[in-house]
Amino acid sequence: MSKVVLFDSSLRDGAQAEGITFSVEDKMKILRSLDALGIDYVEAGNPTSNPKDLEFFERARSFPLEHAKLVAFGSTCHKGSAPQEDAYVNALLAAQTPVVAIFGKSWDFHVTDIIRTSLDENLRMIRETVQYVASQNREVIFDAEHFFDGYKKNPAYAVQTLAAAQEGGASCLVLCDTNGGTMPHEIREIVSAVKERFPGTSIGIHCHNDCGLAVGNSLEAVLAGADHVQGTFLGFGERCGNASLCTVLGDLQLKMGYTCIPQEKMVELTQTARYIAEVANITLTEKEPFVGRSSFSHKGGMHIDGVNKNPKSFEHISPEAVGNSRRFLMSEVAGRSYLLNKLQKLMPGLTKESEETRRMMDRLKELEHDGYQFEGAESSFELLVRKELGRYRPFFEIEDFKVIGETGNGDSSFSAYAMVKVRVDDQVKITAAEGDGPVNALDKALRESLEGFFPALRNIYLTDYKVRILDTREATAAIVRVLIETTDGKEKWSTIGVSTDIIGASLKALVDSLEVKLIKDVEQHVTF
Amino acid sequence: MSKVVLFDSSLRDGAQAEGITFSVEDKMKILRSLDALGIDYVEAGNPTSNPKDLEFFERARSFPLEHAKLVAFGSTCHKGSAPQEDAYVNALLAAQTPVVAIFGKSWDFHVTDIIRTSLDENLRMIRETVQYVASQNREVIFDAEHFFDGYKKNPAYAVQTLAAAQEGGASCLVLCDTNGGTMPHEIREIVSAVKERFPGTSIGIHCHNDCGLAVGNSLEAVLAGADHVQGTFLGFGERCGNASLCTVLGDLQLKMGYTCIPQEKMVELTQTARYIAEVANITLTEKEPFVGRSSFSHKGGMHIDGVNKNPKSFEHISPEAVGNSRRFLMSEVAGRSYLLNKLQKLMPGLTKESEETRRMMDRLKELEHDGYQFEGAESSFELLVRKELGRYRPFFEIEDFKVIGETGNGDSSFSAYAMVKVRVDDQVKITAAEGDGPVNALDKALRESLEGFFPALRNIYLTDYKVRILDTREATAAIVRVLIETTDGKEKWSTIGVSTDIIGASLKALVDSLEVKLIKDVEQHVTF
Repeated sequence: MSKVVLFDSSLRDGAQAEGITFSVEDKMKILRSLDALGIDYVEAGNPTSNPKDLEFFERARSFPLEHAKLVAFGSTCHKGSAPQEDAYVNALLAAQTPVVAIFGKSWDFHVTDIIRTSLDENLRMIRETVQYVASQNREVIFDAEHFFDGYKKNPAYAVQTLAAAQEGGASCLVLCDTNGGTMPHEIREIVSAVKERFPGTSIGIHCHNDCGLAVGNSLEAVLAGADHVQGTFLGFGERCGNASLCTVLGDLQLKMGYTCIPQEKMVELTQTARYIAEVANITLTEKEPFVGRSSFSHKGGMHIDGVNKNPKSFEHISPEAVGNSRRFLMSEVAGRSYLLNKLQKLMPGLTKESEETRRMMDRLKELEHDGYQFEGAESSFELLVRKELGRYRPFFEIEDFKVIGETGNGDSSFSAYAMVKVRVDDQVKITAAEGDGPVNALDKALRESLEGFFPALRNIYLTDYKVRILDTREATAAIVRVLIETTDGKEKWSTIGVSTDIIGASLKALVDSLEVKLIKDVEQHVTF
Repeated sequence: MSKVVLFDSSLRDGAQAEGITFSVEDKMKILRSLDALGIDYVEAGNPTSNPKDLEFFERARSFPLEHAKLVAFGSTCHKGSAPQEDAYVNALLAAQTPVVAIFGKSWDFHVTDIIRTSLDENLRMIRETVQYVASQNREVIFDAEHFFDGYKKNPAYAVQTLAAAQEGGASCLVLCDTNGGTMPHEIREIVSAVKERFPGTSIGIHCHNDCGLAVGNSLEAVLAGADHVQGTFLGFGERCGNASLCTVLGDLQLKMGYTCIPQEKMVELTQTARYIAEVANITLTEKEPFVGRSSFSHKGGMHIDGVNKNPKSFEHISPEAVGNSRRFLMSEVAGRSYLLNKLQKLMPGLTKESEETRRMMDRLKELEHDGYQFEGAESSFELLVRKELGRYRPFFEIEDFKVIGETGNGDSSFSAYAMVKVRVDDQVKITAAEGDGPVNALDKALRESLEGFFPALRNIYLTDYKVRILDTREATAAIVRVLIETTDGKEKWSTIGVSTDIIGASLKALVDSLEVKLIKDVEQHVTF
């Protein structure tokens, strides 16, 4: 199988995305994670651009990588200067990485109008910078910025910039679609032409997603002869983002027969993607190819029926191949047979035509109309089914609660308290707690009030808490949907609450979460 | 310019996406919006699948469309039945749409293993259903489900299913990559082969995004001879979604010279996309090609410098061409020159080396570290600059506040109150308000306490309120970032607050928002 090299720039191009800021610790975590997956090159930016980057390179030097090569990234020397005397180029070397990526201009317009120098001077800057860095015992990758735009306007000059880098000793010539505006057929033609001109040299591709084509264009380039793909692991980057290496990798290795990472690492794809998203503090798009939460989720009734007969009917690969999993989604379009399946777990005799099935379907539609969505909160849905089927008795009741938030001294000394009065059978207990904000205080007070009755609640804690404002047109008076995820150390479950206020919505989700745990403990075989 | 027909299935395939549920009113709004943009066909599902769909077709019939044709969508007749006697097929006709899309099986495995009938019977079902629907004076579009998977396994049979639909009188043969697993070069080869076999017939393409290729594959198909593209306007759909028609349209019309919608409608692309996202109650991905909030946003210092010299240096098209706009993002990677630009508005004499510039840069990094992100809250950033440069005096001070949320009777009667004590010069005012949740109560109390001093505050109101939990690992004790958007009817501005609790974070953002209005009124030329 042909090898395609992957070059990840999440730590630099990724950090240029709106909403992304990495600490040094974040960068170290992502580096380790990409290395563990078997990514070949991890590019981490320019050590001179800010103090955090400098610190990162210092820490990364002392961290042994299993597979990946660390790359520093910077431009050619400045116009009119020799690279040996250019502080910027020397700073790149001071990062002491085995590989340096040098980017230079390939579009004549950028040379004359943006950096404002002569076309010949630009060629010299490229050739001499590559040569100098290579002479310092570094592998040099040349990133030809705006290569495709340049080639379309002045193909001879664009090719000369590659030739200059090759003369300087670059190991790979990377064709960048910096503005993301090149169409697939242009990529194909231009990469083929370049490959013909530099037959023995490694050719790379670097795509942006401004036309929704970053992944497709990367594949086109590989089919046309490129053997090195640059991108960011989750596709984040300047403007519309870079090619998602995670998707490119899935396509090349699982669908096209190329080798990018060790085959046995493929099952770690989903876990790696979700970990990096968490470190980057972004929500991974649910419909992200291969690794998204919805990627193997089936909602339409006919699709659910098909997958139950044979998964390949509506899945192009097995979700397990990338460490993801299949989900069937509860919703009005899922159809009666899926709902029935859920109901039959509690009442095996039910049919599609049963009164209970119809009633439950109506109730579900009503709640969806109010803003509930059970797709991410199966446990709340199962509680609801129990309530509707009369298979539910409350373990406790909240008779009263109050939350107070106050400050006496500007917002710096804000305090939040909650009082809760619960009833369990004929016993009443009142507790109060202080917390970081009213929801946290309420969470604490509620647990404390119940732990005496149900000691098992001592061992559960929340692992996620999400707030969605449903109707932003109403601003602070909008409907709020809260999703929480709870664990007892062995299992995790998700519950939902919807209300016009965040306290009410949170309380509903918290109460559901505690009840699920209590039912779990009472009924060992419960399917929550 | 060659015409490519667009066929939108947001109302059905889109509703199969996780998290999407449309009311009848939502569907009407989306239909009107797609029609106004000049989309050719709007497909709205199956009138028998649920009562909402039935109601939709009834309402849509009485709504005159300017351009689009409304399409009902359903499968062939059942095995062993005649379409004339099939209640399902007759229900499709009862929707009284000018166009009906009929889908049928093209993959032999689906015929034998999923619907479980003979290959010949499936051909009959396709031919007779298309024929019957066409005989009722309908334009019939045939969607060949799983066409590419079928063609790869049994090309002769896959082509026979198209021939059956053609014999039945279908006006267009649509090749569906239902599972989204086909690679671009396969699309090219197979569409070319089909076009050669059916030279005079309109060929369509329907792609899914399971491999991140839905847009790219749609373009490949057009280059190979397809003249009809199916998708959903924003790309949402089952699993990883469908081809985004919004992106396909941008590529075909602005980059490849095809005509999809009237050229003068192109500037409405962004507005249409954002409107549909709002109706669907989803957050449009910021990096969505052409129409996303980040699509023409520049964060890296070198990119900002380049665009300032000439926009085409880092923009593949002008943002105005699609009704979007350019943004420069404030952040530590934006670099000193952009920050300086902001500072110089208040202190024209400052340079990159000034003590104030350095101090401001440090303060910005510190706040970003704490969870602030000024990219979406330029007004809070400008307030911050004023404070750091000593160009700020507070209009009011909050001396004390308290919020109370309580219930006496389960969560159904939850009440929230806020009390606020403000000082303006030497006058003190205390007010209380009730609201939908504590944040809303606080918002009301704060305004009421200040309106006597500053009557202009009567005319402002919040238009958006967003909550982001920054560190979900800490669940309800996590850091909360609140972004609010305020308007006075003429202008809009965005402010931010970060705190460990939602009340504190909201209060900071609210206070900033009121101060911005007061400064705006005092200084007419202010650049907020």
